[in-house]
Amino acid sequence: MAITTAIDVQFGDCDPAGIVYYPTLFHYCHVAFERAWGEALGISYPDLIRNERLGFPTVHVDADFLSPVRYGDTVFVKVWISKVGSSSVVFEFEGAVDGRAVLRASHTKVCMNLDELAKVAIPGHHRAHFETFGR
Amino acid sequence: MAITTAIDVQFGDCDPAGIVYYPTLFHYCHVAFERAWGEALGISYPDLIRNERLGFPTVHVDADFLSPVRYGDTVFVKVWISKVGSSSVVFEFEGAVDGRAVLRASHTKVCMNLDELAKVAIPGHHRAHFETFGR
Amino acid sequence: MAITTAIDVQFGDCDPAGIVYYPTLFHYCHVAFERAWGEALGISYPDLIRNERLGFPTVHVDADFLSPVRYGDTVFVKVWISKVGSSSVVFEFEGAVDGRAVLRASHTKVCMNLDELAKVAIPGHHRAHFETFGR
Amino acid sequence: MAITTAIDVQFGDCDPAGIVYYPTLFHYCHVAFERAWGEALGISYPDLIRNERLGFPTVHVDADFLSPVRYGDTVFVKVWISKVGSSSVVFEFEGAVDGRAVLRASHTKVCMNLDELAKVAIPGHHRAHFETFGR
Repeated sequence: MAITTAIDVQFGDCDPAGIVYYPTLFHYCHVAFERAWGEALGISYPDLIRNERLGFPTVHVDADFLSPVRYGDTVFVKVWISKVGSSSVVFEFEGAVDGRAVLRASHTKVCMNLDELAKVAIPGHHRAHFETFGR
Repeated sequence: MAITTAIDVQFGDCDPAGIVYYPTLFHYCHVAFERAWGEALGISYPDLIRNERLGFPTVHVDADFLSPVRYGDTVFVKVWISKVGSSSVVFEFEGAVDGRAVLRASHTKVCMNLDELAKVAIPGHHRAHFETFGR
Repeated sequence: MAITTAIDVQFGDCDPAGIVYYPTLFHYCHVAFERAWGEALGISYPDLIRNERLGFPTVHVDADFLSPVRYGDTVFVKVWISKVGSSSVVFEFEGAVDGRAVLRASHTKVCMNLDELAKVAIPGHHRAHFETFGR
Repeated sequence: MAITTAIDVQFGDCDPAGIVYYPTLFHYCHVAFERAWGEALGISYPDLIRNERLGFPTVHVDADFLSPVRYGDTVFVKVWISKVGSSSVVFEFEGAVDGRAVLRASHTKVCMNLDELAKVAIPGHHRAHFETFGR
């Protein structure tokens, strides 16, 4: 089931317009993605990288930023998996501040062997976890 | 016409997989976007913010990361405008390393009054510049 | 009394050497500094900026990075105040991972009026909090 | 002799106070440090890491931030070496905007074998370059 991570907006995350610089909103998605590994996907992301030498770089992003996020806000980012392919997987993200939707994003990620930077099939033990991590 | 900006990948832009962390690729798009203002859109982005109190936050992103970008690479990011609406404008980005395509992105941005953080119509003098900044 | 903040090292915090990029270690200090405001200094840092239009930019840094911080580590950053001047204040930081010291830093900060970007005397209500926030 | 690098302050480098977030000023120092390798120290920093598996992480920082750096500024960062030890080397940085000094920093860095994350003696060919890279 989906995991929700609370992220406090830091001073350095914000730009001179006083709102979170949008590349940082993608960083927030990655923070939620990393949290999901540790809590729901059977192995922490650091261990996945170190022990299995696998990573899931992002190859496609579709995102809407629905409302500005300000310094002092706490963003609750919910993450789940909507689709699992042979070597790719789609993570969905929804962010809210005080119940107000601020972002929605789909990230397509591919399973990559980090020693060769080459795409590989998703191993069965990860696929099994992915298939239970729906909304 | 389109502007191309050369961006040297910095050490701190890369992650433990040795490739550029994807939120940083969006930062590269923003660097190219800022350069376009100074060179092709009639006013620098800092002056736009300070003097006109206008900004163009991103409300929609569609992006493909086609090939990993590594430390030591120089990314050439080309930017142009594909569509101008009443208060929104679509910037297109293409990034290449040594002639190899590494990213493609469309960003929809809205004209925002920075004092009120409210969407406003694009002023005529900016619209005129936008309409000549095609591919 | 000193406040300790736990910071999980994120993937994007690390460089291709697999350790935290040192400017990010200063960001960790700022995260701890912001937490101290909310928990021990009488007002949150966002409210200080918004309501009082005061900030505490850093004017001097002295720091030792004692041991590499790796992806997967949790850094416990302890912060307290060692000295209060008329317009300046010294924050001390100590960071540890699994009981191993990884950083030590002193930051001299000055009280600044954010509308004029000018140094001002520390208001009495902040001074009172600062003087009780020792080690 | 010293190398000077021009760095345009980017929108995302600035904080809600409208000035560069100080950890980013250390990132600017690192940008200048990387440039120095490519231009004056005999090998680019990416090649040093990839081919020799050496890096120079920072173990001590002493820095003064003398004047705020604003969005729209170009910072000229000058870098040179003031001291070479058996495994450590001190890089000095001075930053200016329009001739106004904005930062001064000394960084002590140690030569590290990146496969073992262990301190090693500075190889002779690097030492030779370091000794000619004075102010």
